[in-house]
Amino acid sequence: MSSIFAKIIAREIPADIVYEDELVLAFRDIAPQAPVHILLIPKREIATANDVTPADEAALGRLMLVAAKLAAIEGIAEDGYRLLINCNEHGGQEVFHLHMHLVGGRSLGPMLAK
Amino acid sequence: MSSIFAKIIAREIPADIVYEDELVLAFRDIAPQAPVHILLIPKREIATANDVTPADEAALGRLMLVAAKLAAIEGIAEDGYRLLINCNEHGGQEVFHLHMHLVGGRSLGPMLAK
Repeated sequence: MSSIFAKIIAREIPADIVYEDELVLAFRDIAPQAPVHILLIPKREIATANDVTPADEAALGRLMLVAAKLAAIEGIAEDGYRLLINCNEHGGQEVFHLHMHLVGGRSLGPMLAK
Repeated sequence: MSSIFAKIIAREIPADIVYEDELVLAFRDIAPQAPVHILLIPKREIATANDVTPADEAALGRLMLVAAKLAAIEGIAEDGYRLLINCNEHGGQEVFHLHMHLVGGRSLGPMLAK
């Protein structure tokens, strides 16, 4: 049941990895929707946002810290960016390993389509 | 420099609060953009996602846990939802106390406008 992201963690398939620590991994989206589009994932396989447990709080907090750090490195911190996590069909989740999108480098427009 | 959210935490202005613990508060957005639209905030005043520190990791992880719990309570967990944090102008941040949007109850469409 492992997703493509587990294979990226295991270096079984290539990715443009921009950050790694013991809890999280970050790499560039292969189909970027903005000038900066990075995916951040917990290394533990969590299928969706519904599947988080109290034991995951540290990794999930770390995701946020790393997102802010990468925004600074990418030079988009001051102008701003958006962090998104999509869950299941209504959210448009495509890979079932929880991931946070860091997108920026342009004005991102409305938060949601009407 | 306190925002309207600090006043909600302090009960100086009313809000439809749906969850509170020692680290985070959640309440319904007064201008919902979807059938379910809840804001989750750390009680500590953090202006933007750029201002998080390692000491905030627990509260930020908690935000995610609470978002999942509220999605289940609201009955949108299975169909799905989206979690968003907007930072500064490009993200469209409007209140400068870090907040996560939990939106769902309908298909949310594309993640970003083109």
